[in-house]
Amino acid sequence: MALFVMKFGGSSVGDTERMKRVAKRIVEKKEEGHQCVVVVSAMGDTTDELIDKSKLLCEAPPAREMDMLLTTGEQISVALLSMAIHGLGHEAVSFTGWQAGFKTDDTHSKARILDIQPERVKRAIDNGRIVIVAGFQGMSDQGEITTLGRGGSDTTAVALAAAIEADVCEIYTDVDGIYSTDPRIVRCARKLKEISYDEMLELAHLGAAVLHPRAVEYAKHNNVCLVVRSSFNHNEGTVVKEDAVMEQGVVVSGIAYDKNVARISILGVVDQPGILATVFGALADAGIDVDIIVQSGVMDGEADFSFSTARDDHDRAIAVLEGLRATLPYREVTSEVDLVKVSIVGAGMVSHPGVAAKMFEVISGTGISIKMVSTSEIKVSCVIADNKLQDVVTALHTAYGLDTLEQAYVGGPQDRR
Amino acid sequence: MALFVMKFGGSSVGDTERMKRVAKRIVEKKEEGHQCVVVVSAMGDTTDELIDKSKLLCEAPPAREMDMLLTTGEQISVALLSMAIHGLGHEAVSFTGWQAGFKTDDTHSKARILDIQPERVKRAIDNGRIVIVAGFQGMSDQGEITTLGRGGSDTTAVALAAAIEADVCEIYTDVDGIYSTDPRIVRCARKLKEISYDEMLELAHLGAAVLHPRAVEYAKHNNVCLVVRSSFNHNEGTVVKEDAVMEQGVVVSGIAYDKNVARISILGVVDQPGILATVFGALADAGIDVDIIVQSGVMDGEADFSFSTARDDHDRAIAVLEGLRATLPYREVTSEVDLVKVSIVGAGMVSHPGVAAKMFEVISGTGISIKMVSTSEIKVSCVIADNKLQDVVTALHTAYGLDTLEQAYVGGPQDRR
Repeated sequence: MALFVMKFGGSSVGDTERMKRVAKRIVEKKEEGHQCVVVVSAMGDTTDELIDKSKLLCEAPPAREMDMLLTTGEQISVALLSMAIHGLGHEAVSFTGWQAGFKTDDTHSKARILDIQPERVKRAIDNGRIVIVAGFQGMSDQGEITTLGRGGSDTTAVALAAAIEADVCEIYTDVDGIYSTDPRIVRCARKLKEISYDEMLELAHLGAAVLHPRAVEYAKHNNVCLVVRSSFNHNEGTVVKEDAVMEQGVVVSGIAYDKNVARISILGVVDQPGILATVFGALADAGIDVDIIVQSGVMDGEADFSFSTARDDHDRAIAVLEGLRATLPYREVTSEVDLVKVSIVGAGMVSHPGVAAKMFEVISGTGISIKMVSTSEIKVSCVIADNKLQDVVTALHTAYGLDTLEQAYVGGPQDRR
Repeated sequence: MALFVMKFGGSSVGDTERMKRVAKRIVEKKEEGHQCVVVVSAMGDTTDELIDKSKLLCEAPPAREMDMLLTTGEQISVALLSMAIHGLGHEAVSFTGWQAGFKTDDTHSKARILDIQPERVKRAIDNGRIVIVAGFQGMSDQGEITTLGRGGSDTTAVALAAAIEADVCEIYTDVDGIYSTDPRIVRCARKLKEISYDEMLELAHLGAAVLHPRAVEYAKHNNVCLVVRSSFNHNEGTVVKEDAVMEQGVVVSGIAYDKNVARISILGVVDQPGILATVFGALADAGIDVDIIVQSGVMDGEADFSFSTARDDHDRAIAVLEGLRATLPYREVTSEVDLVKVSIVGAGMVSHPGVAAKMFEVISGTGISIKMVSTSEIKVSCVIADNKLQDVVTALHTAYGLDTLEQAYVGGPQDRR
């Protein structure tokens, strides 16, 4: 007997038929002799419909009232899923976030979990019940209903798994698991059997939208064993854990990309102490996220540097830099917006020199130039022109041996919805 | 400055346009310098839609899960209404039942209010906010979400008005107030300016579905001044209070009817101790509500008695009586189903003998016979054939002087929706 936390997203419970299927899946697990705690999101489009209604009434609704409104979506889900399980002859009990003991700070719409007091959940499990918990929500010290913001339900599942010391936290989603790269881009992308938290974190941050980075961080911090798998089939998923087994000779686990990249360069900045702090402080104050920052050396008292940001932020970033010109003299600003970032991720690369060099070689082999480079211990990212994305990812997938992973690792490419 | 509790039902907030109108109404009151606590029901058909979904998943959903599901309806209403008020530039804050301090027992789907701890509501009022409270719901000692059952939002409003010592509890509905009788039956029905709790209770029980009897009882017990008025116009409503002013010479305040009446008679019952207890105990065990009970004297060791019940319960009641035949010998059972009950209600009749006699006279004047009679201090009810209902109500309305109430009392007859 194991204690499972099973998390189902909004599309998995999009209508009553799907909800029945999820209920059946949970009951199967229960009938195998396991204990089940389930975390669910709001059904399909519920959240969007509620937001639409709110917009008809108030242009800028207070975040507190928005949380009050949106948390009903998950409450409806948990009640209905509990009923569906009762309909299959099993005992289930649903809890809102506050009933399940999720204590958060009072930052409405993006609250942080401060503590979980899962006594009611534990008691219900001990009584043989299947427990259904509303994802994405909690309660502040002041008794206000809060939401955890983006990726909230994943985080709910992982945090609850840690709090009740579950054996496994299964994230059911609409893909089979974590792939070596996006199967829409590379047909022979392979499903990974295991991946480490750090690799998953890099992939999550880099746009493989299966798991929210915050949830992965929480899992890493609390050493929660995650499994990412499909809610539509029984295929084995991908295990995310600290000491993921690496296949012989594999140094790169996956290739991720981010299609939303712009580069901005500031040339001929008159060198003075604190110029980087001035520039990036001003950008941060304007709410602009900066990703890669590259500074070349100072020549003749002038410095050049570049950074990447999201395409949507490009125009605002340029405006911020214009505003700085008086205090921070520079020669010119140049920029490009039709860029992508391609990244190779692998815990193995630390001990394998030459991994980055191979990447540069493969990219130049496709005949395009690299605009920016960024590296971490387990990642190399290159910013390139976006018209060669597919060629580059395919070539990297082959070059790092990902096309031919052992059969045991393999899951077929599949449609994402 | 007065402290108002304003209750709006589901049809008053049926869509976002209506919700805006309600918000405007509340803001008007606030701008007149008053403090406003608002109780709302779920929007229009929300509750029915949720029930429909639940039925697709489970034939007999647990009441606890049903409460978890249905309370989201009011939570959506309060959040949206609060936003609508913000949209008009006023500060509002919404509370669920448990946040507003409604403590109930744990009888899911028909919980009773045990206590109200309205500190958060009071604090918000003191801070100048408009407070929006979800009707129909509370929380048990065990932290379970409960619903108050039928008439729940009226009861929420009245109970909250008592707890925060509001000056007035306004019940906004789709009619202008309490009428001397149903305007659909008698065109010259008049809106009453005032009515006592006891009269209102009788009318409420007798099928004038504007206010739930439970809410009226709560108001009487806590001496809460109620006003029933329309959410669609600014007409003065009807005040319900202990010492309602009676108009000169008016002994009957209103005429109510109940169209859903069947009579069952048991003839030739062998007299023995406890026969009534046996019969009505068995009916109660079968969940059959009995209204009027009439026993004629015992003759030759045999008794006859009759009772009235809802038409829907007629067949089951007959079956219960058949089942009793072995232990309680009787000659025969007769019954009629095409009946109605007409009632005159008025606090004044206590001190005016002959009120009942006049009723009998009026009814016999229409050429039909009275099947059963029941009286209380402020009410006389007669069961008659249903094909004469309109004639009888119209004649009684005239006979008791209700056609010609002073102008000040009068509101025009209007469409009910």
